[in-house]
Amino acid sequence: MTPGLPATCPLPLSQYPHVLMAHGGGGRLMNQLIEKVFAESFRNPALDQRHDGARLEAGAGRLAFSTDSYVVRPLFFPGGDIGTLAVNGTVNDLAMCGARPKWLSAGFIIEEGLPMETLWRVAQSMKQAAAAADVQIVTGDTKVVDRGKGDGLYLNTAGVGVIEHEQVIAPGSVQPGDVVLLSGDVGRHGMAIMSVREGLEFESTIESDCAPVAATVMKLFEAGLKVHCLRDLTRGGLSAALNEIAEVARVKIAIAEDAVPVQESVRGACEILGFDPLYVANEGRFVAIVPEADAPRALDILKQAHPEAGVIGWVGAAERGLVTLQSRIGATRILDLLSGEQLPRIC
Amino acid sequence: MTPGLPATCPLPLSQYPHVLMAHGGGGRLMNQLIEKVFAESFRNPALDQRHDGARLEAGAGRLAFSTDSYVVRPLFFPGGDIGTLAVNGTVNDLAMCGARPKWLSAGFIIEEGLPMETLWRVAQSMKQAAAAADVQIVTGDTKVVDRGKGDGLYLNTAGVGVIEHEQVIAPGSVQPGDVVLLSGDVGRHGMAIMSVREGLEFESTIESDCAPVAATVMKLFEAGLKVHCLRDLTRGGLSAALNEIAEVARVKIAIAEDAVPVQESVRGACEILGFDPLYVANEGRFVAIVPEADAPRALDILKQAHPEAGVIGWVGAAERGLVTLQSRIGATRILDLLSGEQLPRIC
Repeated sequence: MTPGLPATCPLPLSQYPHVLMAHGGGGRLMNQLIEKVFAESFRNPALDQRHDGARLEAGAGRLAFSTDSYVVRPLFFPGGDIGTLAVNGTVNDLAMCGARPKWLSAGFIIEEGLPMETLWRVAQSMKQAAAAADVQIVTGDTKVVDRGKGDGLYLNTAGVGVIEHEQVIAPGSVQPGDVVLLSGDVGRHGMAIMSVREGLEFESTIESDCAPVAATVMKLFEAGLKVHCLRDLTRGGLSAALNEIAEVARVKIAIAEDAVPVQESVRGACEILGFDPLYVANEGRFVAIVPEADAPRALDILKQAHPEAGVIGWVGAAERGLVTLQSRIGATRILDLLSGEQLPRIC
Repeated sequence: MTPGLPATCPLPLSQYPHVLMAHGGGGRLMNQLIEKVFAESFRNPALDQRHDGARLEAGAGRLAFSTDSYVVRPLFFPGGDIGTLAVNGTVNDLAMCGARPKWLSAGFIIEEGLPMETLWRVAQSMKQAAAAADVQIVTGDTKVVDRGKGDGLYLNTAGVGVIEHEQVIAPGSVQPGDVVLLSGDVGRHGMAIMSVREGLEFESTIESDCAPVAATVMKLFEAGLKVHCLRDLTRGGLSAALNEIAEVARVKIAIAEDAVPVQESVRGACEILGFDPLYVANEGRFVAIVPEADAPRALDILKQAHPEAGVIGWVGAAERGLVTLQSRIGATRILDLLSGEQLPRIC
């Protein structure tokens, strides 16, 4: 066992050092894996029923429902791992719908031969991330695929959250005159992953920003603020998020480059690898688009969570969706969607 | 284009004959794939919002939440494909919780190089299966992994259903005196897959039993019947399902082998390949464990859906969970869980 593990795996690793095809076969070995590794880590009343699904007491009202699969490599990186990512990613997607995240599912697609200890460490990360985000992992599934037909571990989480207010938080609610707030510095998750893959070393390690943002988002609603749209800055980064919103809302979003904070080490890594931090994925950052009148109070709340939160732009009328960037030297250019991708498999 | 496709893929297949890494990169190509292939197929108001998740009007009450990943190979088989399986599998898991299935998520993990037409066909199957099961695919996610790191396509669906009655449908509700009903013949899905893989030919092709069972289950509740437990007979087949229930409920479940219907072609394939049909996976069969008083009416309802539905056993008191099988020749043996698996990757 590696020192520093949060707890000891109750499945004897000497007996089953690696995941076998049989661990996904519906027999005794699969039951043992589910009991000792997953149920042990995620324990809660809904999961403990050992049924085909979880029964939830949702109360009256509207729900949000979201899913993401996670194929990040390497599985472990500075600031997190595939397990923290899978919990926080779906928690954040629910928060972006204006919902309080409550329940997650977890689907594991494991390549035969994955060290059992790796799976245990990921389950422990998920347990901790779920506790930190105040959600429960209430149902799950385990599949094992042949060697050479996976890449260690793929994870899917889906999530259900409860919407406790009457606002419609969606790209279509964005209007000219709105203000664009950014919740912190950008580019850390993508560059943390790329630095590990490329073996880059900097004075300080770049750590992923992977974190749950739901608590901050809930404070916006608890303060009675109007929020038109929320969007986390995952694949495609700030640029993709703003472009998708602008396209659906048919507005122009104008951003000031100087207003977007980027850590010095992230900027350095981007320069070495030829990336633009505005296109790099984040896992704990979001934009909030709010009416001008509510922007100062919303900003106060975002700053409590991250001192570098700030106003980065505003929304204007346009014929079609458009994002523009005013650069440091004052020139304005269109901030377009990339055609393909900068960074494969960063989430 | 293959003749017989239900509709033409709006993404020009000549331009993008295969899925590229860039289709999962968060840029314009990914947006195009999502718009033209997935949104086009699954169209509904929740999905059309193009947000990080779906907003659902659940009303008051209890929910069920379930997930499964699908790694079946081959992707297409007699009686279905990975898409029908992914919809029906999760629909059935929700029904087994006593819930009316309402909303599904869909997570695609695509290996680079998958023919785009394959993805389109799977999306069309999902569309049809969702319509047949009266559910909507309201949110989704697309990831692309490198060549050699997947097996064409893995799918995850999660589902949310609404529980419209006060009963607790779970293994723990099973009691001595209950009757075990089976909804139809067993072994078809697993043997359909294995026959294709092994190149076996029989007089009649074995077709998977893959189908949604929720409508039948809802009729049990609409008739006011008491139902203690429902369980679909997927990985590990009838044997695994009964063993899991017996273990949680700490009861003995006694089954009569003669009462379990098996198609002649399925029995033949099992004999050739050395399988026991009681351990083979099904994707449209379930057991309903009900109080004796309600068994006749429950059976009538199951028979409306499938004439071979029948009573296959009963529940008795026991110190620990146990499943016994009375064989054709009158001998009784323990029907145990297999340690590993008979059939890799059948779902």
